[in-house]
Amino acid sequence: MIQLYSYFRSSASYRVRIALELKNIEYEYKPIHLVKSGGEQNLAEFKVLNPMGQVPCLVDDQMILSQSMAILMYLDEKYPNPKILFGDLELRSKMIQVSEMINSGIHPIQNLSVLNEIQQRFGLDSQGKSEWARYWIHRGFQAIEKVISETAGEYAFGDELCIADLMIVPQIYNAHRFEVDMAAFPILGKIEKNCLKLDCFKKAEPSAQSDAQ
Amino acid sequence: MIQLYSYFRSSASYRVRIALELKNIEYEYKPIHLVKSGGEQNLAEFKVLNPMGQVPCLVDDQMILSQSMAILMYLDEKYPNPKILFGDLELRSKMIQVSEMINSGIHPIQNLSVLNEIQQRFGLDSQGKSEWARYWIHRGFQAIEKVISETAGEYAFGDELCIADLMIVPQIYNAHRFEVDMAAFPILGKIEKNCLKLDCFKKAEPSAQSDAQ
Repeated sequence: MIQLYSYFRSSASYRVRIALELKNIEYEYKPIHLVKSGGEQNLAEFKVLNPMGQVPCLVDDQMILSQSMAILMYLDEKYPNPKILFGDLELRSKMIQVSEMINSGIHPIQNLSVLNEIQQRFGLDSQGKSEWARYWIHRGFQAIEKVISETAGEYAFGDELCIADLMIVPQIYNAHRFEVDMAAFPILGKIEKNCLKLDCFKKAEPSAQSDAQ
Repeated sequence: MIQLYSYFRSSASYRVRIALELKNIEYEYKPIHLVKSGGEQNLAEFKVLNPMGQVPCLVDDQMILSQSMAILMYLDEKYPNPKILFGDLELRSKMIQVSEMINSGIHPIQNLSVLNEIQQRFGLDSQGKSEWARYWIHRGFQAIEKVISETAGEYAFGDELCIADLMIVPQIYNAHRFEVDMAAFPILGKIEKNCLKLDCFKKAEPSAQSDAQ
């Protein structure tokens, strides 16, 4: 059975959990606590799976895969029902663009390891860290709101769920944690609301995970 | 004709330039100076193309595409000769994983906008900024060196160029700028050496661009 190494609050893990639920793929949940014991992601036995020391990490028989975009594309090809990347080349490329605006444009700059490093190096308190995260999320959401204003229906691209929605909702989850004012982003807010009605999002939510505290 | 909005030193633009040269795609080079006049990427006329205010941005007829991973995958499907993502699902997924270890795992944390923000907020000088960049590149390269130790030949995956090489060489270019000691990464060093012998890399190098100073 597929195993997913995950942390309930990790928004990159959350993306993969949504895909697994959406595609009805049975999987074993392997919690990796990113804070306890100095971070279980740094333990030698986990770094054998992902030398980068990050979740998510998916194990499917002999296949060990990290990086959420790689995992999502892998799952989409192996378990195509339903597809999260679909349509013609132009449409799929724009879906990947919006996904990467989060995956590479926002998320890495506000993830736990960067916030910790900023705290240690520059002496920021939790208010300061939140302010840093807020700045980058706000900046990225401004751009995404603009791009999807041309494509959105019920979801980011029309009325069918796609990979971009699986990136957007977990990033909005982070936005709430860091108290980003979402009033400036009505389209993103609508997408979140529509997605959170769906079972696959409900089951994948941080608070629904076995390691949630 | 395809237009590429690029900055000679932008390592994300460099990735796309290599792909265009490798695939022998004629294109018009549109320089966007990231430093002059407060950053041409922030001008309203550029933000129409990419609201995120970042290069690279590719324009192909009606198609306007940003985010280098989206652009590389788009080019690879539209101009498949030669492919930069090839082989079975497992192999392609690992290629994407390694690419994302750079695209999302290293590059965003050490790019110009983050360095500028750190300088302004925390008063770092150029030494401090280099130290920050070095830390993240070193950390990411340690993980990548480990992953590709199982796959590398002349290049990151065997003896054929793939998308991962197009990510690795520009990131090593940054590593040199920030004075990362590459002695710890012999496989990455070998890949760089082998790639820089190829015409497509030579033509795509920062110093070979019309906006190089």
